[in-house]
Amino acid sequence: MMTLPQSLAEALAEVSAEIDAQFDVLLAIPEDPRADLYRAMRHAAIGGGKRLRPLLVFATASLFGVDRACVARVATAIEAIHVYSLIHDDLPAMDDDDMRRGKPTVHKMFSEACAILAGDCLHALAFEILADPSTHPDPFVRADLVLDLAKASGPTGMAGGQMMDLEAENARFDLNTVTRLQQMKTGALILASVEAGAILGRIAPEGRVGLRGYAHDLGLAFQIADDLLDAEGDEAAAGKRLRKDAGAGKETFLSLLGADRAREQARMLVDQAIAHLHSYGREADLLREIARFVLDRDR
Amino acid sequence: MMTLPQSLAEALAEVSAEIDAQFDVLLAIPEDPRADLYRAMRHAAIGGGKRLRPLLVFATASLFGVDRACVARVATAIEAIHVYSLIHDDLPAMDDDDMRRGKPTVHKMFSEACAILAGDCLHALAFEILADPSTHPDPFVRADLVLDLAKASGPTGMAGGQMMDLEAENARFDLNTVTRLQQMKTGALILASVEAGAILGRIAPEGRVGLRGYAHDLGLAFQIADDLLDAEGDEAAAGKRLRKDAGAGKETFLSLLGADRAREQARMLVDQAIAHLHSYGREADLLREIARFVLDRDR
Repeated sequence: MMTLPQSLAEALAEVSAEIDAQFDVLLAIPEDPRADLYRAMRHAAIGGGKRLRPLLVFATASLFGVDRACVARVATAIEAIHVYSLIHDDLPAMDDDDMRRGKPTVHKMFSEACAILAGDCLHALAFEILADPSTHPDPFVRADLVLDLAKASGPTGMAGGQMMDLEAENARFDLNTVTRLQQMKTGALILASVEAGAILGRIAPEGRVGLRGYAHDLGLAFQIADDLLDAEGDEAAAGKRLRKDAGAGKETFLSLLGADRAREQARMLVDQAIAHLHSYGREADLLREIARFVLDRDR
Repeated sequence: MMTLPQSLAEALAEVSAEIDAQFDVLLAIPEDPRADLYRAMRHAAIGGGKRLRPLLVFATASLFGVDRACVARVATAIEAIHVYSLIHDDLPAMDDDDMRRGKPTVHKMFSEACAILAGDCLHALAFEILADPSTHPDPFVRADLVLDLAKASGPTGMAGGQMMDLEAENARFDLNTVTRLQQMKTGALILASVEAGAILGRIAPEGRVGLRGYAHDLGLAFQIADDLLDAEGDEAAAGKRLRKDAGAGKETFLSLLGADRAREQARMLVDQAIAHLHSYGREADLLREIARFVLDRDR
Protein backbone atom coordinates (compact mmCIF):
# COMPACT_ATOMS: atom_id res chain seq x y z
CA MET A 1 0.00 0.00 0.00
CA MET A 2 1.41 3.42 -0.95
CA THR A 3 1.88 6.08 1.67
CA LEU A 4 -0.56 8.93 1.09
CA PRO A 5 0.33 12.53 1.75
CA GLN A 6 -0.69 13.23 5.32
CA SER A 7 -3.48 15.71 4.68
CA LEU A 8 -4.99 13.67 1.82
CA ALA A 9 -4.82 10.49 3.92
CA GLU A 10 -6.56 12.27 6.75
CA ALA A 11 -9.19 13.73 4.47
CA LEU A 12 -9.87 10.34 2.86
CA ALA A 13 -10.21 8.64 6.25
CA GLU A 14 -12.53 11.34 7.52
CA VAL A 15 -14.74 11.36 4.44
CA SER A 16 -14.90 7.56 4.35
CA ALA A 17 -16.01 7.44 7.99
CA GLU A 18 -18.60 10.14 7.32
CA ILE A 19 -20.06 8.35 4.28
CA ASP A 20 -20.20 5.06 6.18
CA ALA A 21 -22.01 6.79 9.04
CA GLN A 22 -24.54 8.36 6.64
CA PHE A 23 -25.29 5.05 4.91
CA ASP A 24 -25.51 3.32 8.29
CA VAL A 25 -28.42 5.59 9.27
CA LEU A 26 -30.09 5.73 5.84
CA LEU A 27 -29.95 1.96 5.40
CA ALA A 28 -31.08 0.79 8.84
CA ILE A 29 -32.41 -2.74 8.31
CA PRO A 30 -36.21 -2.88 8.67
CA GLU A 31 -37.89 -5.79 10.44
CA ASP A 32 -39.93 -6.91 7.47
CA PRO A 33 -39.44 -8.91 4.25
CA ARG A 34 -37.21 -6.17 2.85
CA ALA A 35 -34.37 -6.99 5.28
CA ASP A 36 -32.20 -8.67 2.61
CA LEU A 37 -32.67 -5.70 0.29
CA TYR A 38 -31.19 -3.41 2.93
CA ARG A 39 -28.46 -5.93 3.79
CA ALA A 40 -27.54 -5.99 0.11
CA MET A 41 -27.39 -2.19 -0.10
CA ARG A 42 -25.26 -2.05 3.07
CA HIS A 43 -22.95 -4.76 1.74
CA ALA A 44 -22.22 -2.66 -1.35
CA ALA A 45 -22.30 0.82 0.18
CA ILE A 46 -20.59 0.56 3.56
CA GLY A 47 -16.95 -0.06 4.40
CA GLY A 48 -15.23 -0.03 1.07
CA GLY A 49 -14.28 1.90 -2.01
CA LYS A 50 -12.01 4.82 -2.60
CA ARG A 51 -14.72 7.40 -1.83
CA LEU A 52 -13.10 9.58 -4.52
CA ARG A 53 -16.40 11.22 -5.53
CA PRO A 54 -17.45 12.15 -1.97
CA LEU A 55 -13.93 13.46 -1.36
CA LEU A 56 -14.26 15.69 -4.44
CA VAL A 57 -17.57 17.07 -3.16
CA PHE A 58 -16.00 17.82 0.23
CA ALA A 59 -12.79 19.28 -1.24
CA THR A 60 -14.69 21.54 -3.65
CA ALA A 61 -17.32 22.65 -1.11
CA SER A 62 -14.51 23.48 1.36
CA LEU A 63 -13.37 26.23 -1.03
CA PHE A 64 -16.64 28.03 -0.31
CA GLY A 65 -17.17 27.32 3.38
CA VAL A 66 -20.29 25.20 2.91
CA ASP A 67 -22.00 23.70 5.99
CA ARG A 68 -20.46 20.25 6.57
CA ALA A 69 -23.79 18.48 7.20
CA CYS A 70 -25.11 19.59 3.77
CA VAL A 71 -21.92 18.42 2.09
CA ALA A 72 -22.08 15.02 3.76
CA ARG A 73 -25.64 14.40 2.51
CA VAL A 74 -24.84 15.47 -1.06
CA ALA A 75 -21.60 13.43 -1.10
CA THR A 76 -23.58 10.40 0.10
CA ALA A 77 -26.14 10.85 -2.68
CA ILE A 78 -23.42 10.90 -5.33
CA GLU A 79 -21.72 7.85 -3.81
CA ALA A 80 -25.12 6.08 -3.81
CA ILE A 81 -25.26 6.58 -7.58
CA HIS A 82 -21.70 5.27 -7.94
CA VAL A 83 -22.47 2.20 -5.80
CA TYR A 84 -25.69 1.42 -7.68
CA SER A 85 -23.75 1.52 -10.96
CA LEU A 86 -21.15 -0.91 -9.58
CA ILE A 87 -23.87 -3.35 -8.43
CA HIS A 88 -25.53 -3.35 -11.86
CA ASP A 89 -22.18 -3.39 -13.68
CA ASP A 90 -21.12 -6.54 -11.83
CA LEU A 91 -24.27 -8.50 -12.81
CA PRO A 92 -23.80 -11.66 -14.90
CA ALA A 93 -25.45 -10.00 -17.91
CA MET A 94 -23.00 -7.09 -17.67
CA ASP A 95 -19.36 -7.59 -16.55
CA ASP A 96 -20.15 -10.79 -14.59
CA ASP A 97 -17.80 -10.09 -11.70
CA ASP A 98 -17.55 -12.15 -8.51
CA MET A 99 -15.41 -9.79 -6.44
CA ARG A 100 -15.63 -6.06 -5.73
CA ARG A 101 -13.73 -4.09 -3.12
CA GLY A 102 -12.28 -7.37 -1.85
CA LYS A 103 -15.73 -8.85 -1.09
CA PRO A 104 -18.18 -11.03 -3.07
CA THR A 105 -20.36 -8.93 -5.38
CA VAL A 106 -23.98 -8.34 -4.34
CA HIS A 107 -25.52 -10.90 -6.71
CA LYS A 108 -23.02 -13.52 -5.46
CA MET A 109 -23.72 -12.77 -1.82
CA PHE A 110 -27.51 -12.39 -2.19
CA SER A 111 -29.20 -13.01 -5.56
CA GLU A 112 -29.39 -11.43 -8.98
CA ALA A 113 -32.93 -10.18 -8.34
CA CYS A 114 -31.87 -8.68 -5.05
CA ALA A 115 -28.86 -7.02 -6.73
CA ILE A 116 -31.03 -5.47 -9.44
CA LEU A 117 -33.43 -4.07 -6.80
CA ALA A 118 -30.64 -2.95 -4.45
CA GLY A 119 -29.15 -0.95 -7.33
CA ASP A 120 -32.54 0.52 -8.22
CA CYS A 121 -33.13 1.47 -4.57
CA LEU A 122 -29.78 3.23 -4.16
CA HIS A 123 -30.54 5.04 -7.42
CA ALA A 124 -33.87 6.37 -6.08
CA LEU A 125 -32.37 7.05 -2.66
CA ALA A 126 -29.77 9.39 -4.18
CA PHE A 127 -32.49 11.67 -5.52
CA GLU A 128 -34.56 11.38 -2.37
CA ILE A 129 -31.54 12.63 -0.37
CA LEU A 130 -30.87 15.55 -2.72
CA ALA A 131 -34.51 16.70 -2.85
CA ASP A 132 -35.06 16.46 0.91
CA PRO A 133 -35.33 19.88 2.61
CA SER A 134 -32.98 18.65 5.38
CA THR A 135 -30.17 18.48 2.80
CA HIS A 136 -30.36 22.18 1.93
CA PRO A 137 -32.88 24.88 2.85
CA ASP A 138 -32.93 26.44 -0.64
CA PRO A 139 -35.15 24.53 -3.11
CA PHE A 140 -33.21 26.04 -6.03
CA VAL A 141 -30.02 24.38 -4.77
CA ARG A 142 -31.85 21.07 -4.28
CA ALA A 143 -33.40 21.11 -7.74
CA ASP A 144 -30.06 22.10 -9.29
CA LEU A 145 -28.25 19.24 -7.52
CA VAL A 146 -30.87 16.77 -8.79
CA LEU A 147 -30.59 18.04 -12.35
CA ASP A 148 -26.78 17.89 -12.21
CA LEU A 149 -26.74 14.31 -10.92
CA ALA A 150 -29.56 13.00 -13.12
CA LYS A 151 -27.81 14.27 -16.27
CA ALA A 152 -24.45 12.90 -15.13
CA SER A 153 -25.84 9.43 -14.44
CA GLY A 154 -28.39 8.94 -17.23
CA PRO A 155 -28.23 8.20 -20.97
CA THR A 156 -26.05 11.24 -21.75
CA GLY A 157 -23.70 10.44 -18.84
CA MET A 158 -22.65 7.35 -16.89
CA ALA A 159 -25.27 4.86 -18.11
CA GLY A 160 -24.85 6.06 -21.70
CA GLY A 161 -21.10 5.51 -21.33
CA GLN A 162 -21.70 2.02 -20.04
CA MET A 163 -23.77 1.27 -23.13
CA MET A 164 -20.91 2.51 -25.31
CA ASP A 165 -18.57 0.30 -23.29
CA LEU A 166 -20.76 -2.74 -24.07
CA GLU A 167 -20.61 -1.87 -27.76
CA ALA A 168 -16.82 -1.50 -27.55
CA GLU A 169 -16.55 -5.30 -27.56
CA ASN A 170 -18.06 -5.46 -31.05
CA ALA A 171 -16.55 -2.35 -32.61
CA ARG A 172 -13.09 -0.87 -33.15
CA PHE A 173 -13.33 2.53 -31.44
CA ASP A 174 -10.79 5.25 -32.25
CA LEU A 175 -9.17 7.54 -29.68
CA ASN A 176 -11.92 10.18 -29.99
CA THR A 177 -14.67 7.65 -29.38
CA VAL A 178 -12.82 6.05 -26.44
CA THR A 179 -12.29 9.52 -24.96
CA ARG A 180 -15.99 10.34 -25.30
CA LEU A 181 -16.97 6.94 -23.87
CA GLN A 182 -14.78 7.47 -20.81
CA GLN A 183 -15.89 11.07 -20.32
CA MET A 184 -19.43 9.73 -20.09
CA LYS A 185 -18.78 6.49 -18.20
CA THR A 186 -16.57 7.82 -15.40
CA GLY A 187 -15.90 11.49 -16.21
CA ALA A 188 -19.50 12.68 -15.91
CA LEU A 189 -19.92 11.59 -12.28
CA ILE A 190 -16.50 12.99 -11.32
CA LEU A 191 -17.52 16.28 -12.93
CA ALA A 192 -20.89 16.16 -11.15
CA SER A 193 -19.10 15.71 -7.81
CA VAL A 194 -17.08 18.88 -8.33
CA GLU A 195 -20.11 20.74 -9.69
CA ALA A 196 -22.14 19.69 -6.65
CA GLY A 197 -19.53 21.32 -4.40
CA ALA A 198 -19.80 24.49 -6.48
CA ILE A 199 -23.63 24.42 -6.47
CA LEU A 200 -23.55 24.13 -2.68
CA GLY A 201 -21.15 27.09 -2.68
CA ARG A 202 -23.70 28.99 -4.79
CA ILE A 203 -21.17 29.57 -7.55
CA ALA A 204 -22.95 30.45 -10.81
CA PRO A 205 -22.11 28.34 -13.88
CA GLU A 206 -19.84 31.10 -15.26
CA GLY A 207 -17.75 30.91 -12.09
CA ARG A 208 -17.23 27.16 -12.40
CA VAL A 209 -15.04 27.17 -15.53
CA GLY A 210 -11.77 26.44 -13.69
CA LEU A 211 -13.34 23.75 -11.54
CA ARG A 212 -14.98 22.14 -14.56
CA GLY A 213 -11.64 22.12 -16.39
CA TYR A 214 -10.02 20.53 -13.35
CA ALA A 215 -12.72 17.83 -13.12
CA HIS A 216 -12.62 17.11 -16.84
CA ASP A 217 -8.86 16.50 -16.89
CA LEU A 218 -8.95 14.64 -13.58
CA GLY A 219 -11.62 12.29 -14.95
CA LEU A 220 -9.55 11.38 -18.00
CA ALA A 221 -6.36 10.95 -15.94
CA PHE A 222 -8.33 8.74 -13.55
CA GLN A 223 -9.51 6.56 -16.41
CA ILE A 224 -6.06 6.19 -17.96
CA ALA A 225 -4.72 5.23 -14.52
CA ASP A 226 -7.57 2.69 -14.35
CA ASP A 227 -6.56 1.22 -17.69
CA LEU A 228 -2.94 0.95 -16.49
CA LEU A 229 -4.14 -0.63 -13.24
CA ASP A 230 -6.23 -3.11 -15.19
CA ALA A 231 -3.17 -4.10 -17.23
CA GLU A 232 -0.41 -3.92 -14.64
CA GLY A 233 -2.02 -3.88 -11.18
CA ASP A 234 -2.22 -6.50 -8.44
CA GLU A 235 -5.64 -8.16 -8.08
CA ALA A 236 -5.29 -8.60 -4.32
CA ALA A 237 -4.56 -4.91 -3.80
CA ALA A 238 -7.28 -3.86 -6.25
CA GLY A 239 -9.83 -6.18 -4.60
CA LYS A 240 -11.37 -7.05 -7.96
CA ARG A 241 -10.69 -9.00 -11.12
CA LEU A 242 -8.22 -7.29 -13.49
CA ARG A 243 -7.05 -7.86 -17.10
CA LYS A 244 -10.61 -7.53 -18.30
CA ASP A 245 -10.13 -5.06 -21.13
CA ALA A 246 -7.61 -7.16 -23.07
CA GLY A 247 -9.74 -10.28 -22.55
CA ALA A 248 -12.82 -8.54 -23.96
CA GLY A 249 -10.87 -7.20 -26.95
CA LYS A 250 -11.85 -3.60 -26.17
CA GLU A 251 -9.90 -0.59 -27.33
CA THR A 252 -8.73 1.52 -24.39
CA PHE A 253 -6.37 4.44 -23.91
CA LEU A 254 -3.72 1.80 -23.23
CA SER A 255 -4.35 -0.28 -26.35
CA LEU A 256 -4.50 2.82 -28.53
CA LEU A 257 -1.55 4.75 -27.04
CA GLY A 258 0.67 2.05 -25.51
CA ALA A 259 1.69 2.07 -21.84
CA ASP A 260 4.42 4.73 -22.07
CA ARG A 261 2.39 7.31 -23.97
CA ALA A 262 -0.67 6.58 -21.85
CA ARG A 263 1.31 7.18 -18.65
CA GLU A 264 2.76 10.38 -20.09
CA GLN A 265 -0.69 11.54 -21.18
CA ALA A 266 -2.10 10.91 -17.70
CA ARG A 267 0.75 12.91 -16.13
CA MET A 268 0.06 15.77 -18.52
CA LEU A 269 -3.64 15.71 -17.69
CA VAL A 270 -2.88 15.85 -13.97
CA ASP A 271 -0.63 18.89 -14.51
CA GLN A 272 -3.36 20.47 -16.62
CA ALA A 273 -6.00 19.72 -13.98
CA ILE A 274 -3.88 21.45 -11.35
CA ALA A 275 -3.24 24.41 -13.67
CA HIS A 276 -7.02 24.93 -13.90
CA LEU A 277 -6.98 25.74 -10.17
CA HIS A 278 -4.63 28.74 -10.59
CA SER A 279 -7.14 31.24 -9.28
CA TYR A 280 -7.36 29.38 -5.94
CA GLY A 281 -4.76 29.56 -3.17
CA ARG A 282 -3.84 27.06 -0.45
CA GLU A 283 -7.54 26.29 0.10
CA ALA A 284 -7.43 24.20 -3.10
CA ASP A 285 -4.41 22.13 -2.03
CA LEU A 286 -6.59 19.13 -1.29
CA LEU A 287 -7.97 19.19 -4.84
CA ARG A 288 -4.35 19.37 -6.10
CA GLU A 289 -3.34 16.41 -3.96
CA ILE A 290 -6.32 14.40 -5.19
CA ALA A 291 -5.14 14.98 -8.77
CA ARG A 292 -1.63 13.71 -7.94
CA PHE A 293 -3.02 10.74 -6.01
CA VAL A 294 -5.18 9.59 -8.94
CA LEU A 295 -2.03 8.62 -10.86
CA ASP A 296 -0.37 6.65 -8.09
CA ARG A 297 -3.25 4.68 -6.64
CA ASP A 298 -3.14 0.87 -6.57
CA ARG A 299 -6.91 0.28 -6.48
CA MET B 1 -62.55 -4.92 -25.82
CA MET B 2 -64.92 -3.14 -23.44
CA THR B 3 -66.50 0.15 -24.43
CA LEU B 4 -65.08 2.97 -22.36
CA PRO B 5 -67.19 5.88 -21.20
CA GLN B 6 -66.84 8.52 -23.88
CA SER B 7 -65.01 11.18 -21.88
CA LEU B 8 -62.64 8.66 -20.28
CA ALA B 9 -61.90 7.06 -23.64
CA GLU B 10 -61.15 10.49 -25.08
CA ALA B 11 -58.98 11.44 -22.15
CA LEU B 12 -57.04 8.17 -22.33
CA ALA B 13 -56.46 8.57 -26.07
CA GLU B 14 -55.33 12.16 -25.64
CA VAL B 15 -52.99 11.42 -22.76
CA SER B 16 -51.53 8.37 -24.53
CA ALA B 17 -50.79 10.44 -27.62
CA GLU B 18 -49.23 13.17 -25.50
CA ILE B 19 -46.97 10.75 -23.59
CA ASP B 20 -45.89 9.07 -26.83
CA ALA B 21 -45.06 12.49 -28.29
CA GLN B 22 -43.01 13.44 -25.22
CA PHE B 23 -41.01 10.20 -25.26
CA ASP B 24 -40.51 10.53 -29.00
CA VAL B 25 -38.67 13.83 -28.49
CA LEU B 26 -36.84 12.85 -25.28
CA LEU B 27 -35.63 9.56 -26.75
CA ALA B 28 -34.50 10.69 -30.21
CA ILE B 29 -32.00 8.04 -31.34
CA PRO B 30 -28.43 9.42 -31.39
CA GLU B 31 -26.03 8.52 -34.17
CA ASP B 32 -23.46 6.87 -31.95
CA PRO B 33 -22.93 3.52 -30.18
CA ARG B 34 -25.83 4.27 -27.81
CA ALA B 35 -28.42 3.84 -30.59
CA ASP B 36 -29.62 0.44 -29.29
CA LEU B 37 -29.99 1.85 -25.78
CA TYR B 38 -32.39 4.47 -27.11
CA ARG B 39 -34.16 1.92 -29.33
CA ALA B 40 -34.67 -0.24 -26.25
CA MET B 41 -36.09 2.67 -24.24
CA ARG B 42 -38.42 3.59 -27.12
CA HIS B 43 -39.53 -0.04 -27.51
CA ALA B 44 -40.65 -0.09 -23.87
CA ALA B 45 -41.90 3.48 -23.49
CA ILE B 46 -43.72 4.32 -26.72
CA GLY B 47 -47.00 2.99 -28.08
CA GLY B 48 -48.34 0.81 -25.33
CA GLY B 49 -49.56 0.54 -21.80
CA LYS B 50 -52.65 1.79 -20.09
CA ARG B 51 -51.06 5.18 -19.23
CA LEU B 52 -53.08 5.07 -16.01
CA ARG B 53 -50.47 7.02 -14.01
CA PRO B 54 -50.13 9.86 -16.55
CA LEU B 55 -53.92 10.01 -16.78
CA LEU B 56 -54.11 10.42 -12.99
CA VAL B 57 -51.60 13.28 -13.12
CA PHE B 58 -53.64 14.98 -15.85
CA ALA B 59 -57.00 14.36 -14.17
CA THR B 60 -55.78 15.66 -10.79
CA ALA B 61 -53.94 18.67 -12.20
CA SER B 62 -57.06 19.58 -14.20
CA LEU B 63 -58.86 20.25 -10.89
CA PHE B 64 -56.49 23.15 -10.34
CA GLY B 65 -56.09 24.56 -13.84
CA VAL B 66 -52.39 23.71 -14.18
CA ASP B 67 -50.58 24.56 -17.42
CA ARG B 68 -50.89 21.58 -19.75
CA ALA B 69 -47.23 21.57 -20.84
CA CYS B 70 -46.06 21.25 -17.21
CA VAL B 71 -48.48 18.40 -16.61
CA ALA B 72 -47.32 16.55 -19.71
CA ARG B 73 -43.66 16.67 -18.59
CA VAL B 74 -44.46 15.50 -15.06
CA ALA B 75 -46.77 12.74 -16.31
CA THR B 76 -44.01 11.56 -18.64
CA ALA B 77 -41.49 11.46 -15.78
CA ILE B 78 -43.81 9.27 -13.69
CA GLU B 79 -44.50 6.99 -16.66
CA ALA B 80 -40.71 6.73 -17.21
CA ILE B 81 -40.39 5.34 -13.67
CA HIS B 82 -43.23 2.89 -14.32
CA VAL B 83 -41.67 1.74 -17.61
CA TYR B 84 -38.20 1.31 -16.06
CA SER B 85 -39.76 -0.88 -13.35
CA LEU B 86 -41.48 -3.05 -15.95
CA ILE B 87 -38.22 -3.53 -17.90
CA HIS B 88 -36.33 -4.61 -14.76
CA ASP B 89 -39.28 -6.70 -13.51
CA ASP B 90 -39.37 -8.68 -16.75
CA LEU B 91 -35.66 -9.64 -16.56
CA PRO B 92 -34.82 -13.37 -16.33
CA ALA B 93 -33.57 -12.94 -12.74
CA MET B 94 -36.87 -11.32 -11.77
CA ASP B 95 -40.21 -12.42 -13.33
CA ASP B 96 -38.56 -13.77 -16.50
CA ASP B 97 -41.25 -12.60 -18.90
CA ASP B 98 -41.06 -12.79 -22.69
CA MET B 99 -44.07 -10.62 -23.53
CA ARG B 100 -45.22 -7.22 -22.33
CA ARG B 101 -47.91 -5.00 -23.80
CA GLY B 102 -48.23 -7.54 -26.62
CA LYS B 103 -44.59 -7.17 -27.69
CA PRO B 104 -41.38 -9.04 -26.81
CA THR B 105 -39.85 -7.73 -23.58
CA VAL B 106 -36.76 -5.50 -23.86
CA HIS B 107 -34.24 -8.18 -22.92
CA LYS B 108 -35.78 -10.53 -25.49
CA MET B 109 -35.73 -7.91 -28.24
CA PHE B 110 -32.28 -6.51 -27.39
CA SER B 111 -30.17 -8.06 -24.60
CA GLU B 112 -30.23 -8.38 -20.84
CA ALA B 113 -27.40 -5.88 -20.46
CA CYS B 114 -29.22 -3.41 -22.70
CA ALA B 115 -32.44 -3.93 -20.71
CA ILE B 116 -30.69 -3.25 -17.39
CA LEU B 117 -29.18 -0.04 -18.79
CA ALA B 118 -32.40 1.06 -20.54
CA GLY B 119 -34.20 0.76 -17.19
CA ASP B 120 -31.45 2.68 -15.40
CA CYS B 121 -31.58 5.41 -18.05
CA LEU B 122 -35.35 5.88 -17.87
CA HIS B 123 -34.96 6.01 -14.08
CA ALA B 124 -32.42 8.85 -14.28
CA LEU B 125 -34.38 10.55 -17.06
CA ALA B 126 -37.47 10.80 -14.84
CA PHE B 127 -35.60 12.91 -12.31
CA GLU B 128 -33.85 14.93 -15.01
CA ILE B 129 -37.27 15.87 -16.41
CA LEU B 130 -38.70 16.84 -13.01
CA ALA B 131 -35.66 18.94 -12.00
CA ASP B 132 -35.44 20.77 -15.32
CA PRO B 133 -36.50 24.44 -15.13
CA SER B 134 -38.52 23.99 -18.33
CA THR B 135 -40.87 21.63 -16.44
CA HIS B 136 -41.88 24.24 -13.85
CA PRO B 137 -40.54 27.73 -13.11
CA ASP B 138 -40.69 27.31 -9.31
CA PRO B 139 -37.74 25.31 -7.89
CA PHE B 140 -39.80 24.46 -4.81
CA VAL B 141 -42.33 22.64 -6.99
CA ARG B 142 -39.52 20.85 -8.87
CA ALA B 143 -37.75 19.70 -5.69
CA ASP B 144 -41.08 18.61 -4.19
CA LEU B 145 -41.96 16.57 -7.28
CA VAL B 146 -38.55 14.86 -7.15
CA LEU B 147 -38.91 14.05 -3.46
CA ASP B 148 -42.43 12.69 -4.01
CA LEU B 149 -41.37 10.43 -6.88
CA ALA B 150 -38.08 9.28 -5.33
CA LYS B 151 -39.84 8.16 -2.15
CA ALA B 152 -42.62 6.46 -4.11
CA SER B 153 -40.21 4.49 -6.28
CA GLY B 154 -37.40 3.61 -3.83
CA PRO B 155 -36.94 1.13 -0.98
CA THR B 156 -39.95 2.46 0.98
CA GLY B 157 -42.12 2.44 -2.15
CA MET B 158 -42.25 0.55 -5.46
CA ALA B 159 -38.83 -1.16 -5.37
CA GLY B 160 -39.29 -2.09 -1.69
CA GLY B 161 -42.65 -3.63 -2.61
CA GLN B 162 -41.00 -5.60 -5.40
CA MET B 163 -38.52 -7.01 -2.89
CA MET B 164 -41.43 -8.05 -0.66
CA ASP B 165 -43.03 -9.64 -3.71
CA LEU B 166 -39.88 -11.71 -4.31
CA GLU B 167 -39.97 -12.86 -0.70
CA ALA B 168 -43.66 -13.75 -1.05
CA GLU B 169 -42.61 -16.89 -2.92
CA ASN B 170 -40.82 -18.22 0.18
CA ALA B 171 -43.17 -16.99 2.92
CA ARG B 172 -46.87 -17.25 3.74
CA PHE B 173 -47.96 -13.62 3.95
CA ASP B 174 -51.19 -12.71 5.76
CA LEU B 175 -53.71 -10.15 4.47
CA ASN B 176 -52.03 -7.26 6.31
CA THR B 177 -48.65 -8.05 4.78
CA VAL B 178 -50.09 -8.53 1.29
CA THR B 179 -51.93 -5.21 1.64
CA ARG B 180 -48.70 -3.45 2.68
CA LEU B 181 -46.76 -5.15 -0.13
CA GLN B 182 -49.28 -3.98 -2.73
CA GLN B 183 -49.51 -0.47 -1.30
CA MET B 184 -45.77 -0.21 -1.83
CA LYS B 185 -45.44 -2.11 -5.11
CA THR B 186 -48.23 -0.44 -7.09
CA GLY B 187 -50.02 1.87 -4.66
CA ALA B 188 -47.09 4.21 -4.00
CA LEU B 189 -46.67 5.25 -7.65
CA ILE B 190 -50.44 5.66 -8.12
CA LEU B 191 -50.47 7.87 -5.03
CA ALA B 192 -47.44 9.79 -6.32
CA SER B 193 -49.26 10.45 -9.61
CA VAL B 194 -52.20 12.05 -7.79
CA GLU B 195 -49.87 13.92 -5.42
CA ALA B 196 -47.90 15.25 -8.39
CA GLY B 197 -51.10 16.77 -9.79
CA ALA B 198 -51.74 18.39 -6.40
CA ILE B 199 -48.14 19.65 -6.10
CA LEU B 200 -48.48 21.23 -9.55
CA GLY B 201 -51.74 22.79 -8.31
CA ARG B 202 -49.80 24.17 -5.31
CA ILE B 203 -52.12 22.41 -2.88
CA ALA B 204 -50.45 22.15 0.54
CA PRO B 205 -50.22 18.64 2.09
CA GLU B 206 -53.16 19.43 4.45
CA GLY B 207 -55.34 20.11 1.41
CA ARG B 208 -54.53 16.78 -0.20
CA VAL B 209 -56.28 14.49 2.31
CA GLY B 210 -59.25 13.69 0.07
CA LEU B 211 -57.06 13.11 -3.00
CA ARG B 212 -54.69 10.91 -0.99
CA GLY B 213 -57.62 8.86 0.27
CA TYR B 214 -58.88 8.51 -3.30
CA ALA B 215 -55.45 7.39 -4.55
CA HIS B 216 -54.97 4.96 -1.68
CA ASP B 217 -58.26 3.14 -2.27
CA LEU B 218 -57.84 3.30 -6.05
CA GLY B 219 -54.40 1.67 -5.75
CA LEU B 220 -55.76 -1.27 -3.76
CA ALA B 221 -58.77 -1.69 -6.04
CA PHE B 222 -56.41 -1.63 -9.02
CA GLN B 223 -54.28 -4.37 -7.49
CA ILE B 224 -57.24 -6.61 -6.64
CA ALA B 225 -58.47 -6.17 -10.22
CA ASP B 226 -54.94 -7.12 -11.34
CA ASP B 227 -55.09 -10.30 -9.26
CA LEU B 228 -58.48 -11.18 -10.76
CA LEU B 229 -57.11 -10.44 -14.24
CA ASP B 230 -54.12 -12.68 -13.57
CA ALA B 231 -56.45 -15.52 -12.57
CA GLU B 232 -59.34 -15.05 -14.98
CA GLY B 233 -58.16 -12.79 -17.79
CA ASP B 234 -57.33 -13.46 -21.42
CA GLU B 235 -53.59 -13.46 -22.25
CA ALA B 236 -54.12 -12.10 -25.76
CA ALA B 237 -56.10 -9.11 -24.48
CA ALA B 238 -53.70 -8.54 -21.59
CA GLY B 239 -50.67 -8.72 -23.89
CA LYS B 240 -48.63 -10.55 -21.27
CA ARG B 241 -48.32 -13.89 -19.52
CA LEU B 242 -51.00 -14.51 -16.87
CA ARG B 243 -51.59 -17.14 -14.13
CA LYS B 244 -48.23 -16.24 -12.59
CA ASP B 245 -49.29 -15.80 -8.97
CA ALA B 246 -50.74 -19.28 -8.55
CA GLY B 247 -47.73 -20.82 -10.29
CA ALA B 248 -45.32 -19.04 -7.96
CA GLY B 249 -47.32 -20.09 -4.89
CA LYS B 250 -47.70 -16.48 -3.74
CA GLU B 251 -50.45 -15.30 -1.45
CA THR B 252 -52.55 -12.57 -3.10
CA PHE B 253 -55.81 -10.81 -2.31
CA LEU B 254 -57.42 -13.50 -4.43
CA SER B 255 -55.85 -16.48 -2.67
CA LEU B 256 -56.56 -15.00 0.75
CA LEU B 257 -60.10 -13.73 0.11
CA GLY B 258 -61.39 -15.91 -2.71
CA ALA B 259 -62.71 -14.47 -6.00
CA ASP B 260 -66.14 -13.37 -4.76
CA ARG B 261 -64.96 -11.53 -1.66
CA ALA B 262 -62.04 -10.03 -3.59
CA ARG B 263 -64.39 -8.66 -6.25
CA GLU B 264 -66.72 -7.30 -3.57
CA GLN B 265 -63.78 -5.73 -1.73
CA ALA B 266 -62.58 -4.05 -4.93
CA ARG B 267 -66.07 -2.64 -5.58
CA MET B 268 -66.20 -1.28 -2.04
CA LEU B 269 -62.78 0.33 -2.47
CA VAL B 270 -63.89 2.02 -5.70
CA ASP B 271 -66.98 3.41 -3.95
CA GLN B 272 -64.78 4.58 -1.08
CA ALA B 273 -62.30 6.17 -3.50
CA ILE B 274 -65.12 8.11 -5.15
CA ALA B 275 -66.52 9.13 -1.73
CA HIS B 276 -63.15 10.76 -0.93
CA LEU B 277 -63.80 13.20 -3.78
CA HIS B 278 -66.99 14.58 -2.16
CA SER B 279 -65.61 18.11 -1.86
CA TYR B 280 -65.10 18.31 -5.65
CA GLY B 281 -67.82 18.90 -8.21
CA ARG B 282 -68.09 17.93 -11.88
CA GLU B 283 -64.43 18.85 -12.39
CA ALA B 284 -63.51 15.55 -10.62
CA ASP B 285 -65.73 13.38 -12.85
CA LEU B 286 -62.73 12.09 -14.77
CA LEU B 287 -61.14 10.87 -11.51
CA ARG B 288 -64.45 9.16 -10.67
CA GLU B 289 -64.60 7.50 -14.07
CA ILE B 290 -61.01 6.30 -13.71
CA ALA B 291 -61.96 4.60 -10.43
CA ARG B 292 -64.88 2.78 -12.07
CA PHE B 293 -62.75 1.82 -15.09
CA VAL B 294 -60.06 0.22 -12.91
CA LEU B 295 -62.50 -2.60 -12.00
CA ASP B 296 -63.61 -3.39 -15.51
CA ARG B 297 -60.38 -3.27 -17.46
CA ASP B 298 -59.19 -6.33 -19.38
CA ARG B 299 -55.46 -5.50 -19.37
